[in-house]
Amino acid sequence: MSADARLLEVLNKLGITLPPAPKPAGVYKPLVVIGNLAYLSGHGPLKADGTLMTGRVGDEIDQQAGYDAARQTGLALLSTTKATLGSLDRVRRVIKTLGMVNAAPDFKNHPAVINGCSELFAEVFGPDHGVGARSAVGMGSLPGNISVEIEVIFEIEP
Amino acid sequence: MSADARLLEVLNKLGITLPPAPKPAGVYKPLVVIGNLAYLSGHGPLKADGTLMTGRVGDEIDQQAGYDAARQTGLALLSTTKATLGSLDRVRRVIKTLGMVNAAPDFKNHPAVINGCSELFAEVFGPDHGVGARSAVGMGSLPGNISVEIEVIFEIEP
Amino acid sequence: MSADARLLEVLNKLGITLPPAPKPAGVYKPLVVIGNLAYLSGHGPLKADGTLMTGRVGDEIDQQAGYDAARQTGLALLSTTKATLGSLDRVRRVIKTLGMVNAAPDFKNHPAVINGCSELFAEVFGPDHGVGARSAVGMGSLPGNISVEIEVIFEIEP
Repeated sequence: MSADARLLEVLNKLGITLPPAPKPAGVYKPLVVIGNLAYLSGHGPLKADGTLMTGRVGDEIDQQAGYDAARQTGLALLSTTKATLGSLDRVRRVIKTLGMVNAAPDFKNHPAVINGCSELFAEVFGPDHGVGARSAVGMGSLPGNISVEIEVIFEIEP
Repeated sequence: MSADARLLEVLNKLGITLPPAPKPAGVYKPLVVIGNLAYLSGHGPLKADGTLMTGRVGDEIDQQAGYDAARQTGLALLSTTKATLGSLDRVRRVIKTLGMVNAAPDFKNHPAVINGCSELFAEVFGPDHGVGARSAVGMGSLPGNISVEIEVIFEIEP
Repeated sequence: MSADARLLEVLNKLGITLPPAPKPAGVYKPLVVIGNLAYLSGHGPLKADGTLMTGRVGDEIDQQAGYDAARQTGLALLSTTKATLGSLDRVRRVIKTLGMVNAAPDFKNHPAVINGCSELFAEVFGPDHGVGARSAVGMGSLPGNISVEIEVIFEIEP
């Protein structure tokens, strides 16, 4: 099954639609291709209605809500990829993810939060190609108080 | 017009001179080339007089001062690039910027701050090649309490 | 002398053994190779006994303890590299390090902390090839309250 088809399955299972490909919030491009690499800008948890999921994890929102925000951020990353490359089937594998959590100073479970995005990628691109290198860390603040910001490097068909 | 010439225009317009290429503050190189990519280390807002712009954005300094610090950081990145590669004309385009703001916990406008660097790159390298992928985020602290630290990957003529 | 042999020298000098290659704490791979690049996931200061060095630098622990944690994180990164690639001699050079310090909001010496990792790499891979581009910054929080998290890109023999 293609990655595009697997994404549809995930969306059906969750009962949601793909968020729109987000417009840049500043002077940057959402995705840049060089050779067989696609560098994706930091994305936030954009919902299909155009709003963003906000709140500090471990303080304003709990870990599960943080996980949901990371999954939503993953969907926004996939929406950008689909809009820019035409199809998710051009993605060969996940190389590197930087998962940044808007977290309370005493929060400790950043990996469990970012799994919301990583498990989505594993479902869509498969358990080997969908899993790459990763850092999951806690930020002091994020734009608009979004709960999570994630950037990723994909290997693609050039 | 060449990128070197456009940088001179920007400096003249601002009435400032290019900061010196910063010396490493630790065990690292300011710029590493591999193939057609140049990885630049995290730079701070170094001024021509050798001092750094400091203060937490949204607390000790305001958003406009943060923007100015991001632009100054961009100038420091260009100074390193020019000193290491010989000319900015060897830069083909901006691939990826990580803009890290020393921000108060409730600060929300990181993209507007990092635009200080991104708009400089767009002026120097052009509105297409000068704009790449980007993340703009808030750190808990930065070395010497500098207001901004930015790292960047350029595509270059190898 | 080979990098593997130099690592043994460092371990003997410190009177310690290499930590085990850490198991992923989430949905990611510790190291991903693409072409001649190895992307390593964010690692923490894992000790040979399987425990992690914790505490916020400049608050719960001092700068020297942060330096020690960065060195230990470097050892964990080398352990993963050795386990995945078979030998450190496949590493040609350090391209880029992102050194993330779990630091108090008023901490200012992040570069001196991350030098704990960078000086280890310089000892093992040599003063030129062992030194790459780098950012050293302060996070709001890190997983399990570890003192340091570091990710790195190595150039390798493909």
